[in-house]
Amino acid sequence: MTASTTGVVFDGQRLWRSLEATFEIGRSSDGGVSRLALSDAEKQMRDRFVGSCEESGLTVSVDTVGNIFARREGTEPQLAPVLVGSHLDSQVAAGPFDGPLGVFAGLEIARALDDAGIATRRPIEIVSWTNEEGPRFAPPMMGSGAFARVLDEATVLATRDPDGISVGEELDRIGYRGATPCGGRDVDSYFELHIEQSPSLDRSGCDVGIVSGGYPAQYLKVTITGETAHSGPTPMAERRNALVSGGRIAVAIDDVGRAHAPDGKTTSTGIDVWPNRPGIIPSLVELRADLRHPDAAELERMVCEAEAACARAAEHDGVSVRCERTHAFGGVSFDEGLIALLEEEAGRLGARSVRLLSQAGHDAYNLLAVCPAAMIFCPCIEGRSHNPREDVDPARLAASVGVMLNSVLRRAQA
Amino acid sequence: MTASTTGVVFDGQRLWRSLEATFEIGRSSDGGVSRLALSDAEKQMRDRFVGSCEESGLTVSVDTVGNIFARREGTEPQLAPVLVGSHLDSQVAAGPFDGPLGVFAGLEIARALDDAGIATRRPIEIVSWTNEEGPRFAPPMMGSGAFARVLDEATVLATRDPDGISVGEELDRIGYRGATPCGGRDVDSYFELHIEQSPSLDRSGCDVGIVSGGYPAQYLKVTITGETAHSGPTPMAERRNALVSGGRIAVAIDDVGRAHAPDGKTTSTGIDVWPNRPGIIPSLVELRADLRHPDAAELERMVCEAEAACARAAEHDGVSVRCERTHAFGGVSFDEGLIALLEEEAGRLGARSVRLLSQAGHDAYNLLAVCPAAMIFCPCIEGRSHNPREDVDPARLAASVGVMLNSVLRRAQA
Repeated sequence: MTASTTGVVFDGQRLWRSLEATFEIGRSSDGGVSRLALSDAEKQMRDRFVGSCEESGLTVSVDTVGNIFARREGTEPQLAPVLVGSHLDSQVAAGPFDGPLGVFAGLEIARALDDAGIATRRPIEIVSWTNEEGPRFAPPMMGSGAFARVLDEATVLATRDPDGISVGEELDRIGYRGATPCGGRDVDSYFELHIEQSPSLDRSGCDVGIVSGGYPAQYLKVTITGETAHSGPTPMAERRNALVSGGRIAVAIDDVGRAHAPDGKTTSTGIDVWPNRPGIIPSLVELRADLRHPDAAELERMVCEAEAACARAAEHDGVSVRCERTHAFGGVSFDEGLIALLEEEAGRLGARSVRLLSQAGHDAYNLLAVCPAAMIFCPCIEGRSHNPREDVDPARLAASVGVMLNSVLRRAQA
Repeated sequence: MTASTTGVVFDGQRLWRSLEATFEIGRSSDGGVSRLALSDAEKQMRDRFVGSCEESGLTVSVDTVGNIFARREGTEPQLAPVLVGSHLDSQVAAGPFDGPLGVFAGLEIARALDDAGIATRRPIEIVSWTNEEGPRFAPPMMGSGAFARVLDEATVLATRDPDGISVGEELDRIGYRGATPCGGRDVDSYFELHIEQSPSLDRSGCDVGIVSGGYPAQYLKVTITGETAHSGPTPMAERRNALVSGGRIAVAIDDVGRAHAPDGKTTSTGIDVWPNRPGIIPSLVELRADLRHPDAAELERMVCEAEAACARAAEHDGVSVRCERTHAFGGVSFDEGLIALLEEEAGRLGARSVRLLSQAGHDAYNLLAVCPAAMIFCPCIEGRSHNPREDVDPARLAASVGVMLNSVLRRAQA
């Protein structure tokens, strides 16, 4: 990775080293990382980040939901800060870039400005949001949601994981329940660098993705109630097997995604079955799915098709099915002013950029509720993410970091 | 319930009271009972049974795998005993008759012989076999399997439940690891009374089912390996969702059963999924199923059809699928001499009887390895079993108890 040669430069090797130093944290036997929010592994990530920020002379504060802010003071401290960041938590079977890249790229921006001896009018704050991923505590994008008052802070703190442990308890345990009030303050703007997680940018030949907005996504919870009975003698015609019906619905939801491909996406992500024991027909199933499409009207059609498939399965299998729309996110457009700024800087730096939509959820969606926000994607090799083989090409990463650095600088001087 | 009016009579109300006294043991909120093998609730069942046996002057012994024998001595104690019994453990969402009926009916036989002042040449032993059901410790019919040397005793004792607790540890904990060697002794014959668990006898108008044999049953374990990836951006065409494939296979296995109905039966009983978290495509699934058919060759065809469905799903979903044949049981014929005896006694007592096959697994299958064995079914209302609504009609129960009592007596005098 080489630093950009126009505009303010940064040390690509230093950024890579700071990322590499985290590769072993929460490393799992499959070669990936597992750093679920507020776990011991994620605490290690937090400690590492905070230590590096303090070494770099940044002032670290932690808010009441565990969001971490590392502030590089501006010459006019009363001005609203520019925020730059992402998240340090990961999925359960993850690669090392989804999240930490954006946080450590923020730190590299601060270091690069120091190296260049540049003071900015506005403060710049590097932020790590609590629980972006959501596999342990639902919903995802929790810390940014509380900060932007999209989620209720007390509800967030009371949210429990599958073992019954709350966010508040875990913040106390790992020492990251801070004293700084969560949100409620002016923010000039928010920038987030992230791997794309789709193969489109990687295959496009462009190095910089300028994100114009995010796919709307709808999570569904399907509850199926059949009846227990003996797995042997019960006549086939009299069975009400909730697991078979859940399987039928999982296949139908997958078919909905394929029928709306390539833009539409559907995933059955999980299932819980009761009694889930040999010798007895399962009577209770909870199936969880998410559906996404760039066009909200098309997404609505897809959700209706999934709901219709649930009704058909209920009829076919003699079970009752309740399909609930639970968490939804996305369907946002990023700030046109920031998008124009990013494109201008990309042009000035000679970076090949392309506008695209994010298909995943990101903290930047929540920040739009309180300030102009924008995202930059770097290519993710073959689009593999939430997978131990997630990887990025350091040589192609430099362009997006350079664009973000110079855009943040412009905004911080404005 | 009235006692049989020909042959030796028994006290139907006493039998019903002894069953009723167990209805609250392990009662769950759904109105059923849950008395998993070697649990606290099943220990209560054991204690109740042992207490009743000792009150009735029977000599109780417990073998090294926890099988309980309550002996009514014969006038020729050196003769091999007649065994009568069933099991006290239950499924996780069960009714109160599956198992305990056969055990307490055995006790009622001993009491009825006492009341009639009848001494038998052969000893009669009322037996409760450990872990007939198998939802906690696999395979089912474990205690009888060890007794009949169909299963290895050391393996049985080392078998662990999903929480990692072994049979041996639980036997020690509840005080039922006995000193009597397990099996290895002569047994004259084995009789077992059980609810039918299919609606066929209930709907037939007959009160006594004389079981000629048991359906062969084959358990399958299907392991599906896909790949984790982000549930959002990953293109539909590049997904390898193991849960979708598992759902497809569950539906296909159900279809196999329906295609072979009414004789064929198939059940997907359970599934485990990893990571089973929001935001990530599941990569690992274990699906468990059982298949049954009275004709072994037809069952083999059904298993082959299920295996072919697994291969098709693998191809369709881009996953790898391994389908293993795990536990198998059944495919047995009961002893013709005992069947003739039961039919003769049914005729003498004027009971309406019918020969039929058992579609469920029973301890009597294992006993065939060491002695002549036979089973009697009583009607089970609508065939509902492994369900809190499992029920029997006391008035229709009397006939089968009377047939068993008089058959056991004839055998014990032979």
